[in-house]
Amino acid sequence: MTTTVAGFVGVTGNAGVKDGVPDVSLVHATGATTSSAVFTQSLFAGPSVELSRTGDLAALQAVVVVSGNANVATGEVGLADARALRDWAADRAGCAPEQVLVASTGVIGVPYPRQRMTERLAGLPAAEPVDLDAVARAIMTTDTTPKVATRDVGGARAVGIAKGVGMIEPDMATMLSFVYTDAEVPAADLDRIFRSVVARTYNAVSVDTDTSTSDTAAILASGAAGPVDLVELEAALLEVCTALVRMIASDGEGASTLIEVRVTGARDDAQAKLVGKAIVNSPLVKTAVHGADPNWGRVAMAIGKCTTETDIRQEAVRIAFGGLETYPTLPTPETRARLEEYLRRDEVVIEVDLGVAEGAFTVYGCDLTDGYIRINADYTT
Amino acid sequence: MTTTVAGFVGVTGNAGVKDGVPDVSLVHATGATTSSAVFTQSLFAGPSVELSRTGDLAALQAVVVVSGNANVATGEVGLADARALRDWAADRAGCAPEQVLVASTGVIGVPYPRQRMTERLAGLPAAEPVDLDAVARAIMTTDTTPKVATRDVGGARAVGIAKGVGMIEPDMATMLSFVYTDAEVPAADLDRIFRSVVARTYNAVSVDTDTSTSDTAAILASGAAGPVDLVELEAALLEVCTALVRMIASDGEGASTLIEVRVTGARDDAQAKLVGKAIVNSPLVKTAVHGADPNWGRVAMAIGKCTTETDIRQEAVRIAFGGLETYPTLPTPETRARLEEYLRRDEVVIEVDLGVAEGAFTVYGCDLTDGYIRINADYTT
Repeated sequence: MTTTVAGFVGVTGNAGVKDGVPDVSLVHATGATTSSAVFTQSLFAGPSVELSRTGDLAALQAVVVVSGNANVATGEVGLADARALRDWAADRAGCAPEQVLVASTGVIGVPYPRQRMTERLAGLPAAEPVDLDAVARAIMTTDTTPKVATRDVGGARAVGIAKGVGMIEPDMATMLSFVYTDAEVPAADLDRIFRSVVARTYNAVSVDTDTSTSDTAAILASGAAGPVDLVELEAALLEVCTALVRMIASDGEGASTLIEVRVTGARDDAQAKLVGKAIVNSPLVKTAVHGADPNWGRVAMAIGKCTTETDIRQEAVRIAFGGLETYPTLPTPETRARLEEYLRRDEVVIEVDLGVAEGAFTVYGCDLTDGYIRINADYTT
Repeated sequence: MTTTVAGFVGVTGNAGVKDGVPDVSLVHATGATTSSAVFTQSLFAGPSVELSRTGDLAALQAVVVVSGNANVATGEVGLADARALRDWAADRAGCAPEQVLVASTGVIGVPYPRQRMTERLAGLPAAEPVDLDAVARAIMTTDTTPKVATRDVGGARAVGIAKGVGMIEPDMATMLSFVYTDAEVPAADLDRIFRSVVARTYNAVSVDTDTSTSDTAAILASGAAGPVDLVELEAALLEVCTALVRMIASDGEGASTLIEVRVTGARDDAQAKLVGKAIVNSPLVKTAVHGADPNWGRVAMAIGKCTTETDIRQEAVRIAFGGLETYPTLPTPETRARLEEYLRRDEVVIEVDLGVAEGAFTVYGCDLTDGYIRINADYTT
């Protein structure tokens, strides 16, 4: 079964960055679109992000992605390379360069193999109705699986793809994620809905606290299926992006367990998010989950790290794993055995109630394993 | 050779927390002292910290430390246990309970074995001139080596001891560190000097970003050797505490390499510290050092994470490893070979100049290895 969206065509291929496998993809609309996009806030954002950020973000016609080389901190050469890539895509898509979103992911600090890339791009076949599964594969780097999520909404559909399993703690969006829909949505509504969804999904995931220089998320709507209910659309997009975020966390470099931290009872949602991130990012919590150890003391420590939040009182806090309370009611030996059993699952939920007010936020992450060390100690520039 | 300081006596022994090995130490002054102490800012600080914090910090007479159990998040029972320990130490030292600093380190969320502990403490021999090497051993938990540093200053000496190799990113002090000197120093001067030294040493080290619930650092001065030059004293204490901090980073859980990050050219020292911490705490930088990979792109990424620091411009930044520049001048193949050789050392210096102004700060950390995962996935509550 192929995953297509009416109004979009595309092509994938090898541009000479990786060895033989697909490393470039172009998806473009066949007519007018509405769109929205968000980018990393990194001070070392690369030329792909810098160029894309100044484009016509409400009417993007095309997305071109190179994987295997981030084209970051590559100076004037890198900027020229990004412009050349954008011009190629605009030419293929029949649109203005400003209507092309350029994204690149992989090694930092190494220029593209420019001549080989130019030749290979020129030799790619013409775009045709595109299988977004294949596009999801072509944007992978250290991902072990392609990440695709689809939901129907009214007579339309929304298909999201994503990549990224390391250098993941997006501050605006995840490493790379693109959602294509054939719903007809006014650009302002699409932007508002997408930003709301991004805040609860891409900005709620962290693999390793390392914010990428290349984070980019965008949605393009072709309108081919006509208008849809906007509330239903937002619900569908939230499901699509939550599914992608869970895939990113599950496939976190070296990860064996998805960790979901649900913080409730906070002063506000922002406080809940701050505490959730402190927990899901704690190396000691991550390794405890890896070891199937219900070490709730490390969760308490991570809450305690949030020293700006002086309205949190340890006496009012409640900590549980999968519904099994560990604080303030300490686990009995029987509960402890159930906790250890629970922590051997592929997905673990840590629940914290701060006992302050009604704020809530859920964040996603993964355990920390030997695999993360191996992948990142061996991955060379 | 034993490491003693005039005016201090002590005893070490087993209080039944650990199996057979020394797990308790008491050091107390034989006369009046001046002193200063700083503590963790964790919201989950334990009763040892809470009790000690309200003590007579300018005239501490004794320090009692239990290792193997942090006595944290243990509720009313834990508070009563901490009081009992403090009363025992005050009785032995012949001082008021408020003049005893109590510290405890180890597992969180498990009460002390109270009855066994009471019996064992009663059976300990009387204090005598104490070998601080032995005290440094008695406060170890997952440390692989005792941490002791000594400097002479005028006719006096200062001996510092420390422990802590995980859950290390102190916000006021390291896990546990105590400095004993026979210099005669007015309490107000001692406090000012010690806080200044703490800011540049304990508050500049991070093993894993996890701020402990039990961080405590204190200095006690017996005055037995008479007055010393205060500028010389501060220099000596800075050397003692820097040496201890380097030992903590070198012995970081699973670590094989000490990482020193020297940030210069910042707007102010605070900005330099923020950027330094972002670099030394980045899992991707830590694993790159572990893999002897001169992946300066990850250093750039870590700088880029400091998104609040909008006066940092990537064009003005300079990155080097051990004096070998990697950005903006990218390494030649020959430089790259020298970089890889350099990164195989036990101690690695990463130099970053931000090109903003004259602020500077140096932070200390360590690489991230399989060992950290093994230690922390297997260490149970």
